[in-house]
Amino acid sequence: NAHSGLSASRLGYAKEKMSENGPWGKVLTIDTMNPTVKKVEYAVRGPIVQRAVQIEKELREGVKKPFAEVIKANIGDAHAMGQQPITFFRQVLAMCSYPELLNDSSFPEDAKHRARRILQSCGGSSLGAYSASQGIDCVLQDVARYIERRDGGIPCNPENVYLTTGASDGIMTMLKLLVCGEDEGRTGVMISIPQYPLYSAALAELGAVQINYYLNEDKCWSMDLSELKRSLKEARRHCNPRALCIINPGNPTGQVQSRDCIEDVIRFAAKERLLLMADEVYQDNVYAEGCEFHSFKKVLFEMGPEYSDSVELVSFHSTSKCYMGECGFRGGYMEIINMDPEVKAQLNKLVSVRLCPPVPGQALMGLVVNPPQPGEPSYINFIKERSATLSALAEKARLTEEILNTVPGISCNPVQGAMYSFPRTRCLMTFLVFLLQENDQAPDMFYCMRLLEETGICLVPGSGFGQKDGTYHFRMTILPPMDKLKVLLTKVKEFHQRFTNQYS
Amino acid sequence: NAHSGLSASRLGYAKEKMSENGPWGKVLTIDTMNPTVKKVEYAVRGPIVQRAVQIEKELREGVKKPFAEVIKANIGDAHAMGQQPITFFRQVLAMCSYPELLNDSSFPEDAKHRARRILQSCGGSSLGAYSASQGIDCVLQDVARYIERRDGGIPCNPENVYLTTGASDGIMTMLKLLVCGEDEGRTGVMISIPQYPLYSAALAELGAVQINYYLNEDKCWSMDLSELKRSLKEARRHCNPRALCIINPGNPTGQVQSRDCIEDVIRFAAKERLLLMADEVYQDNVYAEGCEFHSFKKVLFEMGPEYSDSVELVSFHSTSKCYMGECGFRGGYMEIINMDPEVKAQLNKLVSVRLCPPVPGQALMGLVVNPPQPGEPSYINFIKERSATLSALAEKARLTEEILNTVPGISCNPVQGAMYSFPRTRCLMTFLVFLLQENDQAPDMFYCMRLLEETGICLVPGSGFGQKDGTYHFRMTILPPMDKLKVLLTKVKEFHQRFTNQYS
Repeated sequence: NAHSGLSASRLGYAKEKMSENGPWGKVLTIDTMNPTVKKVEYAVRGPIVQRAVQIEKELREGVKKPFAEVIKANIGDAHAMGQQPITFFRQVLAMCSYPELLNDSSFPEDAKHRARRILQSCGGSSLGAYSASQGIDCVLQDVARYIERRDGGIPCNPENVYLTTGASDGIMTMLKLLVCGEDEGRTGVMISIPQYPLYSAALAELGAVQINYYLNEDKCWSMDLSELKRSLKEARRHCNPRALCIINPGNPTGQVQSRDCIEDVIRFAAKERLLLMADEVYQDNVYAEGCEFHSFKKVLFEMGPEYSDSVELVSFHSTSKCYMGECGFRGGYMEIINMDPEVKAQLNKLVSVRLCPPVPGQALMGLVVNPPQPGEPSYINFIKERSATLSALAEKARLTEEILNTVPGISCNPVQGAMYSFPRTRCLMTFLVFLLQENDQAPDMFYCMRLLEETGICLVPGSGFGQKDGTYHFRMTILPPMDKLKVLLTKVKEFHQRFTNQYS
Repeated sequence: NAHSGLSASRLGYAKEKMSENGPWGKVLTIDTMNPTVKKVEYAVRGPIVQRAVQIEKELREGVKKPFAEVIKANIGDAHAMGQQPITFFRQVLAMCSYPELLNDSSFPEDAKHRARRILQSCGGSSLGAYSASQGIDCVLQDVARYIERRDGGIPCNPENVYLTTGASDGIMTMLKLLVCGEDEGRTGVMISIPQYPLYSAALAELGAVQINYYLNEDKCWSMDLSELKRSLKEARRHCNPRALCIINPGNPTGQVQSRDCIEDVIRFAAKERLLLMADEVYQDNVYAEGCEFHSFKKVLFEMGPEYSDSVELVSFHSTSKCYMGECGFRGGYMEIINMDPEVKAQLNKLVSVRLCPPVPGQALMGLVVNPPQPGEPSYINFIKERSATLSALAEKARLTEEILNTVPGISCNPVQGAMYSFPRTRCLMTFLVFLLQENDQAPDMFYCMRLLEETGICLVPGSGFGQKDGTYHFRMTILPPMDKLKVLLTKVKEFHQRFTNQYS
């Protein structure tokens, strides 16, 4: 290693590099940086999106294109797509930010009441004070009560709730607690394929082993017990599998898991001694008839003490999805169940180093779990806004599936929930694969890049989420406003036909 | 390792643990968790603070104590200590949260202008949209212009600015990029002792080598070139030192570095090929006559191209300190200078995994760097509020030093800047050290715990920040309101005298 050891050898090394990097050469180069960071990939903001931003700039500068605007369907960013925030939430946040507004008679009493309650729970009655590392006390209480209502009365202790900086932060924190060991004893974590790439990125950053289990595309992206077993068995040959991550409703796949399936997964985790991480940020986003959201916690407790006393479960939620779509506030929580008390103490210490999650996001999380109640002045408007958003999403989910399935060579599972479809494109044949292997570009990346250049539609290639070898997909959000979504779907359809003709 | 390998051995292990942990034993225990997390320590929210929270609860429950309230001087949390937010900032944040307020005639035009400008730079004109991972475009621009004004016109490219979730997040991200190598090639990072414990915690979490350099208490906690050399030379025997962290103005020590000292440090870093990390979050908190804040960037560029073209520097700022004290919003930025473009691309990817820093905190950072200007309607009030806070802090800094230095056995350097004093207590003699070695408690922890139990004053022992062997300190913030600060100082004085009598 040229960088360690005596000054003399360091000097020699530096002199070699002199011509490119000034007299001493850089301390931090691609060759001397953290190698685990280099392995991280994150497709949702990868090359396609970077090119989309460039194209937008070119359009502003007057460059002629075969389209007038870029339509982004690459990321679950509802407000950026024109979804309006819930009035009540924003009224309370405005009053919390500038408490003078508590004297403004144009704000409703229930909003004022929430704002006062949150401020009383803040140091110096200010959003500007650090909160306790676990979160503002009254919000922890409200989250616990929300979970109890959601799960039909199964108790939730606020001491097991941690507010987070979005769900990503909670997931990262839990994985960080878990990862240890070297070589064959290295911690392995099971994640679905396709997956949300935060998981693969976090595991790469932590140097953990990513264990893939494949969702069953032929059965509407459901989880298969036999596949879980296969995946675990193979992984045990080379690492120490310790956790199983589930996203329900699914991202990028949009499936909603049945109660039976969740029971199977819990039995499997109990038998195989796996900690369960349930990413449940789309818990309000269920559209398909006959589908219902079942929280892992509720199912776990209904399976009786044999399971509920022992299986370790962490569940994640967020302000970013559902009907509120408040991504920018970075609010979220996690609930830990059956965590060893000594580990919990370590978790408390770990979160205290970051001081606290952003307090406006905590306040917002508190409002999401304690919205206007029947009889309160804001209730009717709240329900109206929430229903409008959720039914628009349901309509877009239906339309997306319907139109994509009219395209020869595209097949799309029902978007039962969440905010994405993950259709399979069957045009990418051996010829194309052969063609692209040479320049090291994945066929679906090529497809999405061509789509972007020709139509201005920004989607993410399936390879960014993982897919079975030899299959090709893209992820698109269902979030663009209805008129743009229709344009998007029509353009995808036309493009796909052109593309198929060109490459077959 | 009982946890890896075949199912049979796993089963055996689990059965052993059956009695304590249910049928299978926990997956995640103190013995099977990430060992680097266990090594993390964070005194600012450690045992003293946990006990303080308990005592507060006991007081509320009516338990009799020799004091009526706990006074916390353990953390730089200005609003919790009653400091009022800047009106202008909060007005803009309220309008950004609830844009209906843009029609409210009671808000000044300059505040409306800022709110509109921020919202226009947000996706869907909403704080609820994700921003670009690097931050909101108009805020990046404003930060760059602020840095240029601050540094007398030295150019700042907004592409080198990254908004962060408080300064802690930026520091952690930079260290994460940097750390690599194994054994003697392991990355070492030089930090001051005393230090702010985020640094030691982050290094422990990343498994990097912490290299201590001692500040010179006899010279008002200044940095000594000879000590830097000693520290580096010793470290090179067992690791690969690659970065040097500086906190200026100092935390917990309150010193403000001279221009000459900064030049020395830059020359040292250049010669020894160290990346500089300058934690400059207290840049407005300078109180002592003759002291002035010099940014590392300004000094670097004034030293000419020999240095400014090659030395890698990252500077951190935050919304949490200075005159605004807005800790809860978790706003901050970092500027990177002379970073290798390939590494910058990796940094971009790394921050994109977390999507974006909290947008309200970004907006606030934007306001801090672009406050009301002369001639704007809010200017006079802004200046009034800012000056009131800064002069109150200056007065508290003076008073703290003055009173503590009247106590026999306590010596306290001038609080030239930042928000803390770090006085040395000389009462803790050999006898006490001997007494406490048996139960593994540091003498200064014992001192602070007794102080808390007897007086309700919550300070942090010096051992949480690091100190020369055989010296004992505590850190106290100067943030309590003047009346409480006087009570605090008097109680510390009386306690110290009692304590000294008791243990001598």
